[in-house]
Amino acid sequence: MSRSPGRKQENHKISRELFVLTYGALVAQLCKEYEKDEDVNTCLDSMGYSIGIRLIDDFLARSAVKKCRSYSETADMIAQVAFKMYLGVTPSVSCSSATGNVFSLILDKNPLVDFVEELPPERASLCYCNLLCGVIRGALEMVHLAAEVTFLQDRLKGDAVTEIGITFLRKPEDRKHRR
Amino acid sequence: MSRSPGRKQENHKISRELFVLTYGALVAQLCKEYEKDEDVNTCLDSMGYSIGIRLIDDFLARSAVKKCRSYSETADMIAQVAFKMYLGVTPSVSCSSATGNVFSLILDKNPLVDFVEELPPERASLCYCNLLCGVIRGALEMVHLAAEVTFLQDRLKGDAVTEIGITFLRKPEDRKHRR
Repeated sequence: MSRSPGRKQENHKISRELFVLTYGALVAQLCKEYEKDEDVNTCLDSMGYSIGIRLIDDFLARSAVKKCRSYSETADMIAQVAFKMYLGVTPSVSCSSATGNVFSLILDKNPLVDFVEELPPERASLCYCNLLCGVIRGALEMVHLAAEVTFLQDRLKGDAVTEIGITFLRKPEDRKHRR
Repeated sequence: MSRSPGRKQENHKISRELFVLTYGALVAQLCKEYEKDEDVNTCLDSMGYSIGIRLIDDFLARSAVKKCRSYSETADMIAQVAFKMYLGVTPSVSCSSATGNVFSLILDKNPLVDFVEELPPERASLCYCNLLCGVIRGALEMVHLAAEVTFLQDRLKGDAVTEIGITFLRKPEDRKHRR
């Protein structure tokens, strides 16, 4: 008495809601475990890093993008290809430094916080989506780009937008920033 | 110096890989926290339950399905509509009892374990995907269907397929099982 489905074909897309709620469960679990917001933030960043260094292979294989020739191209790639592919949204990108190595990804709406109203007062320093920073940092590192990635603004904290800052760290021998 | 993306349109789909890796991070975190597999399993089930009782609203709103008139219809709905919608796969359904309240969802391939090779020997009793059981249980409870949901087979443990068992618990006053 077995009924087979019409088509068993798989795809690479899943519904965002399940992800968002599962991510919420992860953050809640870490908040149970760590009293200090800073520890939760660090843990999320570190988890994200581990994810990023694995996700990059999937990204390069599926996106078939060419090598980026500048930090600016890399920032655009993260926003327009990676965010689109993995989260279904496209942040806008701005370059906020004359030196050309500091960028912001600006999200009018953050898909990861769909079910989150606001942070409780005792969790005012929590970077709820800090996993994303770690993912970006880990993925960049795997293409030999060291970067600092942090939240600069967060709608969960009352800011008008959510802004992720990416600072590419130039190495002395890498002045031509070939990627 | 701000570049807007071509289209900001959002959708409800995200890439499965990010979810799968994030779920892996969650399980790894719980394994760090709890020594006993049983405690990890219970925690995953309980997290899943909390997700299920919230996800059901999203499911009912987006699927626009009609009320199921039997346990069999409900099991089909879970497999063919819910799994498809949330995980992008469609398990086959089998009814394994003469009483008509025990079903199996059989997954040839479990999308949640894409990046998992096998369970380490010291985690032999881990139900890696136990969150799913909790999600199903929680969602069913919200439409007034009590059920026990457990993994019966698991490819991660060397079984040929992954099988989730759903036993609808009939209440004495509910012999006609109206849903």
